[in-house]
Amino acid sequence: MSYLEKLRAAQKKNNSWLCIGLDPQPGLLPLEAQRWDEPVLPFNRRIIEATADLVCAYKPNLGFYMQWGAAGVIALERTIAAIPDDIPIILDAKIGDIGHTQAAWGRGVFDEWGVDAITANPYVGADAVRPLLAWRPDKCVYLLARTSNPGAQRFQGDLTTRRGLSADVLREASRWMGDGDGHCGFVVGATYPAELAVARELAPAAGFLIPGIGAQGGDLAAAVRYGPDRMAGPVINAGRSVIYASAGLDFAEAARAAAIALRDEINALRSG
Amino acid sequence: MSYLEKLRAAQKKNNSWLCIGLDPQPGLLPLEAQRWDEPVLPFNRRIIEATADLVCAYKPNLGFYMQWGAAGVIALERTIAAIPDDIPIILDAKIGDIGHTQAAWGRGVFDEWGVDAITANPYVGADAVRPLLAWRPDKCVYLLARTSNPGAQRFQGDLTTRRGLSADVLREASRWMGDGDGHCGFVVGATYPAELAVARELAPAAGFLIPGIGAQGGDLAAAVRYGPDRMAGPVINAGRSVIYASAGLDFAEAARAAAIALRDEINALRSG
Repeated sequence: MSYLEKLRAAQKKNNSWLCIGLDPQPGLLPLEAQRWDEPVLPFNRRIIEATADLVCAYKPNLGFYMQWGAAGVIALERTIAAIPDDIPIILDAKIGDIGHTQAAWGRGVFDEWGVDAITANPYVGADAVRPLLAWRPDKCVYLLARTSNPGAQRFQGDLTTRRGLSADVLREASRWMGDGDGHCGFVVGATYPAELAVARELAPAAGFLIPGIGAQGGDLAAAVRYGPDRMAGPVINAGRSVIYASAGLDFAEAARAAAIALRDEINALRSG
Repeated sequence: MSYLEKLRAAQKKNNSWLCIGLDPQPGLLPLEAQRWDEPVLPFNRRIIEATADLVCAYKPNLGFYMQWGAAGVIALERTIAAIPDDIPIILDAKIGDIGHTQAAWGRGVFDEWGVDAITANPYVGADAVRPLLAWRPDKCVYLLARTSNPGAQRFQGDLTTRRGLSADVLREASRWMGDGDGHCGFVVGATYPAELAVARELAPAAGFLIPGIGAQGGDLAAAVRYGPDRMAGPVINAGRSVIYASAGLDFAEAARAAAIALRDEINALRSG
């Protein structure tokens, strides 16, 4: 089953475009979990059990696991194994190395770990995408187009001018994406809603992974309006606002309530 | 001791600007090692023992370890621990995430693993550098300016025009580098010798990490001419041409011979 098929099935089954970012941060974990010896895996398990019927994907970010070195990566490997088989997993690693190194990443994350999609950084050019899709054309690569951080425009430019690096990436890399059948696409932050509209115009057929919702204050209405393509709905990611909804013993229930509220808000915008 | 101090001491002690890339690839490992259950760590140990008096740094690339999932990252963690304390370690991970994620990477690689420098990708802007140096100003970030792959110019532009993305990164990010005292700098591939000269012109005070020597066919004379800055020599990396110099039982001796030849070739160019 390709990434596209798996994503569509999860979006339909759970009636959801919501993705939850599984990003463990020591100081933000519930107070109870901060007392556990190795909190990451049991914390993630509780969050997954409480939300797996509400999401279209999970997105763990490699950086938050690497902060514990190899022990964190073991917890990530086990977290990936704990996610139900019918929910797509997007590994957020923003990899962007030259050809033979990208292929090594592909072997690890697609074959060893079985993740369904990975984020990549276009700075090196086509090498960021093609070795991954040559290895596994059924998987998906989400290439950074417009990141969600405040300083993003410094090198990426202002997309509303339809010029600059992000515009160039969207136009050029759309052609590379055709190499795969997993429905590849772009990362476009909801924190730049006017640029999200232009990104959809420049890459009409691409899948969109949209971060910046929740703690970063992104525009959910723009994500719902410009996120969908002809094949699937967007993957709209929220992290901290869901998984750290409560620091108390009720953290899993609070994460579930936050996920329901966000999924329902998205669905209200879809039908509105 | 800052990265700069450690690098200068190693360059002086071993009379070397050579860095060896520790990039394990299953199909390239010596035939003997391919029969071992977990070949990565013992292979790396043999290479390190055979070359530690010949190099100014080691550069393991995270992607080549991730191809074995968490088991590979454990082997990387142990490889890092096996490198003598007086040889700087540059983790090549080309990380480029937004602020709080870059800081998490910094905690892992600088504090947990004790590496001395990391490579980063400038696509997101200042977030690629500043959270790392805010966490550990004594460490070094090498930011991608010109990568060594054939398709690098597609987004990075032609540096000899002094315009385009690589030129912009070199000019702008030189200012961010001043935040640290570890002597940060740029990755500039030796496969674009004319651009290496312009990179030195645009970033006169930056440290240079120069890949592309050996198997990629980069220009060693240009690396020696434009690599040094006022504080230190460049870090000139060779990977496959050294560590896979022989597939036989003599692989460590052959790696040592290849490293001596390359170090001496660099030193002949320095004094020539």
